[in-house]
Amino acid sequence: MTQSWWLNPCKAVDRQAVQDAEQLQQQLTKPAGSLGQLETLAVQLAGLQGRLKPSVNQLWIGIFAGDHGVVAEGVSAFPQEVTGQMLRNFVNGGAAISVLARQLQARLEVVDLGTVTPSLNLPGVRHLHLGPGTANFAHGPAMTAAQGAQALQAGRGTVLRALAEGAELFIGGEMGIGNTTAASALACALLDCPVAHLTGPGTGLDTAGVSHKTQVIERALALHAAQRGDPLQTLFNLGGFEIAALVGAYLACAQEGLAVLVDGFICSVAALIAVRLNPACREWLLFGHRGAEPGHRHVLETLNAQPLLDLGLRLGEGSGAALAVPLLRLACDLHGQMATFAEAAVADRPA
Amino acid sequence: MTQSWWLNPCKAVDRQAVQDAEQLQQQLTKPAGSLGQLETLAVQLAGLQGRLKPSVNQLWIGIFAGDHGVVAEGVSAFPQEVTGQMLRNFVNGGAAISVLARQLQARLEVVDLGTVTPSLNLPGVRHLHLGPGTANFAHGPAMTAAQGAQALQAGRGTVLRALAEGAELFIGGEMGIGNTTAASALACALLDCPVAHLTGPGTGLDTAGVSHKTQVIERALALHAAQRGDPLQTLFNLGGFEIAALVGAYLACAQEGLAVLVDGFICSVAALIAVRLNPACREWLLFGHRGAEPGHRHVLETLNAQPLLDLGLRLGEGSGAALAVPLLRLACDLHGQMATFAEAAVADRPA
Repeated sequence: MTQSWWLNPCKAVDRQAVQDAEQLQQQLTKPAGSLGQLETLAVQLAGLQGRLKPSVNQLWIGIFAGDHGVVAEGVSAFPQEVTGQMLRNFVNGGAAISVLARQLQARLEVVDLGTVTPSLNLPGVRHLHLGPGTANFAHGPAMTAAQGAQALQAGRGTVLRALAEGAELFIGGEMGIGNTTAASALACALLDCPVAHLTGPGTGLDTAGVSHKTQVIERALALHAAQRGDPLQTLFNLGGFEIAALVGAYLACAQEGLAVLVDGFICSVAALIAVRLNPACREWLLFGHRGAEPGHRHVLETLNAQPLLDLGLRLGEGSGAALAVPLLRLACDLHGQMATFAEAAVADRPA
Repeated sequence: MTQSWWLNPCKAVDRQAVQDAEQLQQQLTKPAGSLGQLETLAVQLAGLQGRLKPSVNQLWIGIFAGDHGVVAEGVSAFPQEVTGQMLRNFVNGGAAISVLARQLQARLEVVDLGTVTPSLNLPGVRHLHLGPGTANFAHGPAMTAAQGAQALQAGRGTVLRALAEGAELFIGGEMGIGNTTAASALACALLDCPVAHLTGPGTGLDTAGVSHKTQVIERALALHAAQRGDPLQTLFNLGGFEIAALVGAYLACAQEGLAVLVDGFICSVAALIAVRLNPACREWLLFGHRGAEPGHRHVLETLNAQPLLDLGLRLGEGSGAALAVPLLRLACDLHGQMATFAEAAVADRPA
């Protein structure tokens, strides 16, 4: 592993498997194309997994949590202690993602990169203690380069454990009071877009709150403007530990050959950074849903992403991606189990 | 049962259960509203099932098949024998809906109301032999009133069997070469809308084919114009046996108190007829997806329906509704299993 492992090449997609899967789709007992996006999905997964009949039964969900110094600016509707409290809720089974992981028979790994709650030590959580949350990026860089590299590496570590346990699909989730502020700031810096277009209510700000959040982000962007062209330094300046971990996780998935299902706004911003750092990783990213946070649509369009769901979700935790997993599984089941016209003795349309 | 049982009152929704479920949603460990449409769904199902924590684990899928005399006008890309061939594929497990029913642990009932294939007798299929398909509605009524009443009753029969086996959710599916032509004609008659807006490629017509299909429908609408204001007679004039069975099934569900998940264009047209016959049934109808057939969007808007998926599906068979079932199940799981703020000792946002 080099110092900047994240720039290493991504695994190539298996074009032969794509072609074979496309051919199989044409023979299944249905009008050609009538399963819409599910056909494309099955074919894409065949290419990523290098097999005619892909499977996403083995699902790994990695949740990354961290606190945000920028919360000192008054940008969130919830108190900062909630990050640590929710870590306990994740492992105790009461959070949305805990319920979803259980129902989907997924492995759920919870990684605490650093919260404001001192000496948090929860059974079932991997505590990494990179710091008591990030520094306030309205006054300086959110994290040091060393912290950033550790966070990227933490994401990679989760992916390597997922692979060792036979994962066929990876979902990254996030928890961190204040992290829509970090995500909006990152998206603005990368997309050169007016802050108001990419800033929303997060967990529940009112109009005045969103307006204040916008101003905080504008100030921070001005402070860090000189490094806007550098996606890695921008991540360290404006990001969060959990966002950097997601970037590392997505890049590791693409390098090691594990399909990713990206969650909502914050995860999509992490995906955007990953693509800017190492563009070939884009092929490994599927998108679970289009969320309610207004910036999400813009980030998805930039990534040319076609999300599966559009249900007005804005929870995070990886929940929107988890909700889309049954669609991927059923797409694989249809692709792998439907009869062909020949097998079923059904007449195909006349040539 | 009266002669016109379909006009009997629908079961009332349990408003207390709705209120209790809304209150529970407010206490779960997530920002209020952050699960978007899934929150609404869970609350709606609570009202329909009359319990705080609804469940849709027990799923019943009824597939109704029939042939269409109007196929003589050259309105379909596939030969008419496919209807009977697909019946065999349904019970042999090779069709899309067979795969989905298996994966969802649903009970799949296949009802043949009348196809062109003489003396079809397939183990596992209920053959009703209402006729060798409908008559060609370009020249006269598609079915007699007696056939129509039998088809409505067939749909009701399926629902009564579903209830006897403890079904918690009903999906109706359809198979019938030519049935998008019937559905488009019905939608035009009911919505008073230009035929071109509601007519599409079905299983795969080209532009010239769609144009010809549009002309056939325009001619038929002129022939049956005098009875356009009567939804039941319009159903008999322009419908199909399987469409009438779906209408009967949806109305029986609403009367008996079984939640329905409506599939694509043809099923949505059946839902529209059901609502025109007995408007209170609308509350019992959930909508699985917005399909690729262009008329579907219009019918959904008329019904004020918010479908769960939008994946470019155009297969029918109940497949689009089946694909949405995991979302309903997960909505119920989240509603029923997430911890409250108090249980998890997580701080709610300051008052």
